[in-house]
Amino acid sequence: MKLQVTQENLHKALSSVAKVANSRGTLPILANVLIKTVGGRVSIAATNLDIAITHYIGSKVSEEGAITVPARLMQDFVASLSSDSTITLDLQETKLNITTPHHQSVINGTSAEDYPVMPGISDGTSWTLPSNVLRTSLQQVLIAASSDEARPVLTAVNIHTHDKQLFMAATDSYRLAEKRITKLDKDFNLLVPASALQDLLRILTDSDEEVHITHDDQQILFKVGDIELVARLIEGAYPDYRKLIPSEFAHSATVAQKELLDITKVSALFARESAGSVTIHLDELEQQISIRAVASQLGENTASTSATIAGEGVITLNSRYILDAVHALEGDTMALSFNGKLEPCVLTGTKHNDYTHIIMPLKS
Amino acid sequence: MKLQVTQENLHKALSSVAKVANSRGTLPILANVLIKTVGGRVSIAATNLDIAITHYIGSKVSEEGAITVPARLMQDFVASLSSDSTITLDLQETKLNITTPHHQSVINGTSAEDYPVMPGISDGTSWTLPSNVLRTSLQQVLIAASSDEARPVLTAVNIHTHDKQLFMAATDSYRLAEKRITKLDKDFNLLVPASALQDLLRILTDSDEEVHITHDDQQILFKVGDIELVARLIEGAYPDYRKLIPSEFAHSATVAQKELLDITKVSALFARESAGSVTIHLDELEQQISIRAVASQLGENTASTSATIAGEGVITLNSRYILDAVHALEGDTMALSFNGKLEPCVLTGTKHNDYTHIIMPLKS
Repeated sequence: MKLQVTQENLHKALSSVAKVANSRGTLPILANVLIKTVGGRVSIAATNLDIAITHYIGSKVSEEGAITVPARLMQDFVASLSSDSTITLDLQETKLNITTPHHQSVINGTSAEDYPVMPGISDGTSWTLPSNVLRTSLQQVLIAASSDEARPVLTAVNIHTHDKQLFMAATDSYRLAEKRITKLDKDFNLLVPASALQDLLRILTDSDEEVHITHDDQQILFKVGDIELVARLIEGAYPDYRKLIPSEFAHSATVAQKELLDITKVSALFARESAGSVTIHLDELEQQISIRAVASQLGENTASTSATIAGEGVITLNSRYILDAVHALEGDTMALSFNGKLEPCVLTGTKHNDYTHIIMPLKS
Repeated sequence: MKLQVTQENLHKALSSVAKVANSRGTLPILANVLIKTVGGRVSIAATNLDIAITHYIGSKVSEEGAITVPARLMQDFVASLSSDSTITLDLQETKLNITTPHHQSVINGTSAEDYPVMPGISDGTSWTLPSNVLRTSLQQVLIAASSDEARPVLTAVNIHTHDKQLFMAATDSYRLAEKRITKLDKDFNLLVPASALQDLLRILTDSDEEVHITHDDQQILFKVGDIELVARLIEGAYPDYRKLIPSEFAHSATVAQKELLDITKVSALFARESAGSVTIHLDELEQQISIRAVASQLGENTASTSATIAGEGVITLNSRYILDAVHALEGDTMALSFNGKLEPCVLTGTKHNDYTHIIMPLKS
């Protein structure tokens, strides 16, 4: 293998893929990235066996070939080179010689033949979404996904269609986030690992560039520009969460998001001793929402702000979950509604009705 | 105690002092800050017994008094309030009631009588320095101070006069930094804990505001604006470092600082296996300086850049120390000079001759 690439392109590709490489796994080669000529281009790829990311970059290839090299060293090395340099890669057996105007380096590689390859998707269902729409939706639902491997289905985001519309949902059983994304005349119900979607999030830009999505029974492929991300689907049945979402409420507050954020933040400081537990009071007479936290050692705090209240009521929630939910909502004002102290609390934007966030109450 | 302060002032004062409070110590009250009325002002203070910082702020005092409250909670609480709020503090026994337009809080305090007080400096030597001069000097020398408590004198910065000039020096025995600051017709030789000077650094601004410095045999006091920092001096004799600094050199390179920084950074990546060890080669024929790092597992790197070389030579240094030294130098070009493989290597700016950085070589 012998080729020339710009620092800018190689740096961009390594930034996309290197985080997937893992040096703490049992298979040492998974700490490497695969560098491979593909026609007149070079592919830079990494996998952790559950996810694979490949980034194609332009290159002057004078000799075909492939090698794997330590991801972290390669990424740090290329990042520290000046952005206008041209980099020459010249493979001699398993030694990758790297030359730039100021540097002569040799990085010891491992044969590309030993690198695991994820199977491709030959015949699957395909659809597209603009990058910025997919990005916002993922940011809104990923916060509710579980990281507890004991229940694998809850570590997934449920990407599915319902009534000819595309939805994403995630829940860790303490909270749930659901986003209705767009009309889509397909029929599928997929469990995509949240960790893969976190990696996808790093790649997606805030532009309206199309993301091409293809899946079969086993895998899902996201293709955006010169980057491909493949993830293994999670098997199992996702909880039928729709029946949990109430449609009418006995107690409801409409409040400015920034105000609720401010008073929750302060109360959260006093809720550290009690695992984040704060008590929300909707005061119909005063037309205000107040949040109270009590720390037996440190002291206590009550913070309040004006709100439109329909139905006096009290509920105890985890303050961290409130902060996450308010951050995820779009718009300026929001509604916080519930039916009783032990019933789910629903948070939605008042302008946008496509995103629903549910927090299960704590016993107080 | 009953008083009113602005969020802005209280926040600024807590930011200056709260870091000195330590919740991991043996004396629980040292995790607190002391809030105390002093005439028409309020003092916010914290100490770890080696250092004490006091910040005075303006206040409407309607009742004198004092209390200590947990530093971290108080700082986070005030930081999360909006910056235009007026805060009322009202002490009832040991409960501090805090009221703002949106918040009603109670923080449980501990009596101010139990808070340790550092003795004042009644009769000492005094001098002044502009804040920005003191700040730059500290940034340049503190990097060379030791953090190893086994040799307490090396955890100090040696602030002293020599030939009617003020100097600061620090060394961890592997490297040494010396700054000649200004003419000063006094005679003293102090060992000031580097940790106290790190705290002072957080307080100093980049302005020419005067810092008033007073010391006796036991303590040193820095006074800048409304803030006072007192530190206990370290006892002992500082090494006679001046005899270590050579004045003539057999090998010398004059090089652009940015270029040396760039090539050192890249080589440092390959020097991780060998505890940072890199070999510098001054090449008189090619008039270039090159840095070579060899990692048996990963590979190797040689980076070079043009330089003015007087005397071909080779020396092995810790790459992290080179990076620290180059960052500390002022100006655009620098000199790197030495007399032999096992002799100290001296780094200085070519325009500014008031700062000298010495790195002891590694055996190669």
